[in-house]
Amino acid sequence: MTARRGRRLDFEHGLVELTHGGGGRATTQLIEELFLPAFHNDLLATRNDQAVMHMPACEMAMSTDCFVVSPLFFPGGDIGAMAVHGTVNDVAMSGAMPLYISAAFILEEGLPLHDLRRIVLSMAEAAQDAGVRIVTGDTKVVERGKGDGVFINTTGIGIRMPGVAPSVEKAQPGDAVIVSGTLGDHGIAILSQREGIGFETDVISDCASLHRMVASLIETCPHVRAMRDPTRGGLAATLNEIAEASGVGMILNESALPFDPQVEAACELLGLDPLHMANEGKLVAIVPFDAAEDVLEALHADPLGRRAALIGRVVEDPRHFVQIQGDFGGTRVLDWLAGEQLPRIC
Amino acid sequence: MTARRGRRLDFEHGLVELTHGGGGRATTQLIEELFLPAFHNDLLATRNDQAVMHMPACEMAMSTDCFVVSPLFFPGGDIGAMAVHGTVNDVAMSGAMPLYISAAFILEEGLPLHDLRRIVLSMAEAAQDAGVRIVTGDTKVVERGKGDGVFINTTGIGIRMPGVAPSVEKAQPGDAVIVSGTLGDHGIAILSQREGIGFETDVISDCASLHRMVASLIETCPHVRAMRDPTRGGLAATLNEIAEASGVGMILNESALPFDPQVEAACELLGLDPLHMANEGKLVAIVPFDAAEDVLEALHADPLGRRAALIGRVVEDPRHFVQIQGDFGGTRVLDWLAGEQLPRIC
Repeated sequence: MTARRGRRLDFEHGLVELTHGGGGRATTQLIEELFLPAFHNDLLATRNDQAVMHMPACEMAMSTDCFVVSPLFFPGGDIGAMAVHGTVNDVAMSGAMPLYISAAFILEEGLPLHDLRRIVLSMAEAAQDAGVRIVTGDTKVVERGKGDGVFINTTGIGIRMPGVAPSVEKAQPGDAVIVSGTLGDHGIAILSQREGIGFETDVISDCASLHRMVASLIETCPHVRAMRDPTRGGLAATLNEIAEASGVGMILNESALPFDPQVEAACELLGLDPLHMANEGKLVAIVPFDAAEDVLEALHADPLGRRAALIGRVVEDPRHFVQIQGDFGGTRVLDWLAGEQLPRIC
Repeated sequence: MTARRGRRLDFEHGLVELTHGGGGRATTQLIEELFLPAFHNDLLATRNDQAVMHMPACEMAMSTDCFVVSPLFFPGGDIGAMAVHGTVNDVAMSGAMPLYISAAFILEEGLPLHDLRRIVLSMAEAAQDAGVRIVTGDTKVVERGKGDGVFINTTGIGIRMPGVAPSVEKAQPGDAVIVSGTLGDHGIAILSQREGIGFETDVISDCASLHRMVASLIETCPHVRAMRDPTRGGLAATLNEIAEASGVGMILNESALPFDPQVEAACELLGLDPLHMANEGKLVAIVPFDAAEDVLEALHADPLGRRAALIGRVVEDPRHFVQIQGDFGGTRVLDWLAGEQLPRIC
């Protein structure tokens, strides 16, 4: 191998080899020629197997996610950007400002280095935009046919804003249910790229980091009861989890649910419910009802929250049902998805 | 699905299905019937997408690793125990006490739930023994043939002991090079299980958490220059990394290197160098020479360090070579491994 003196990695035509995960010179070369320059920061540059950061006394949030989305590249994003945004959002939903992220890769032998570089640069850009630092990492390589291009784990650390403690079990009857924008965009963007399902649409993934919008929401409403980003399982899973954890029900107004018309059309065509589709740049907030108007105003002021809407209310319900009220008064139960609507959406 | 009322998971005959990664009711069932009871602790039980912990003002260490070891079960351990020990050790090597771990799973459709439970229980036991808590997690499922049973990411957080700051660039000429025990055991234990290579041996993996031994090392020698666990790439990769980062050379005494005779015999049989074999329960410490004797005494007092040995010295060398001096005075350069000796060792 040639890490110290010799050929550099060929990012145009080269492929990931098993040696890149061996912990020897080829691994070092990948770190030196790709990860360090892309994620450059002091903490990563120490080249230890861990990062060490000064932390003030705080409530610290920690969240982890593996990303296995297929395809790796899709309209509006890719697995790299998503791995940053997704973990930033999970940390932010606790009312914390995300600061540090770890990034660990499971690469499949034969992955074009060109694709890997594109993904890593996309992560770096997403992290820089979000103001978080990728401070430590790991790379493993599995044999051809034992993985699928690249899987990424990101784990994020953040500091919770003082006095803030949203949690899924805090929803109370009377609270307002707010969503920050249109539902199902990510799911449809991914679906449009799948082999055998492909269809024409201009829908792009909503993949984005929401922590700044969360900060302005919290400034407006420090006593937000619960926040969550409705990813896998969509709005339906998220609201059912909150209802279950809080021991309440919810009633949503069908006409208040925000959708992109193209997403609605695609869902109709495919026989899918957009309320079960994944989102990667939306949040659900349960807030005291008298704070709802101010929260909506704060969300509308953020480019990512322009289509925020008050979609329903928390109610007493010993069955913990999430129900949807139609325009003509009829209601239906919005259940969890029975099976798997769409594997590997994130 | 049947999370709320209905059949429980069948851990004897059931298989992982794509729905277990869908974020809906099947995912919830897996969390409720497997992960929560196994890892039980207050932080995990909040059921939020993140854990929130109180942290004092501190130097905080963070480390991440993906584990893709094959086979999943091997003499002396399994992928679950290893995922805990490995991250505990990476955090500990910075001089930190590990406290919290995240656990994220990429499961292959068709994995027996029986195997998954065995792995998860092994993680839980390893975490309990090590005194660390698994506080947040994630589960994804990929289609059959797109993964390999189970991959695990663990990311660990710890608090660095005050006044301690070992780092790979701190080795100085004159320092002692110490290793905490026999070399290559994990590599040979894995190799003995591989299809097509299998051979008879009683060697078991050294897979273990080293943070308590690190604490007693630090108590004895707060100014330890550098610590690292020689996993992938073995002692050779670890020492070359330290030499490179510190801008020094090293000279090891061949006769001082501790080996299990069975590991030596297996390596000879297979034409492998045990200095390139992975270890999962050993550490290398570079310490000021006058502290070496006390450090050895501290290590010998720990059951995991009984065969600790002073194996060499740091020297000035502009080429940053790690050299081995034989019993009759001849030296050879211990280089990084050129290729991949053994894929998926961890």
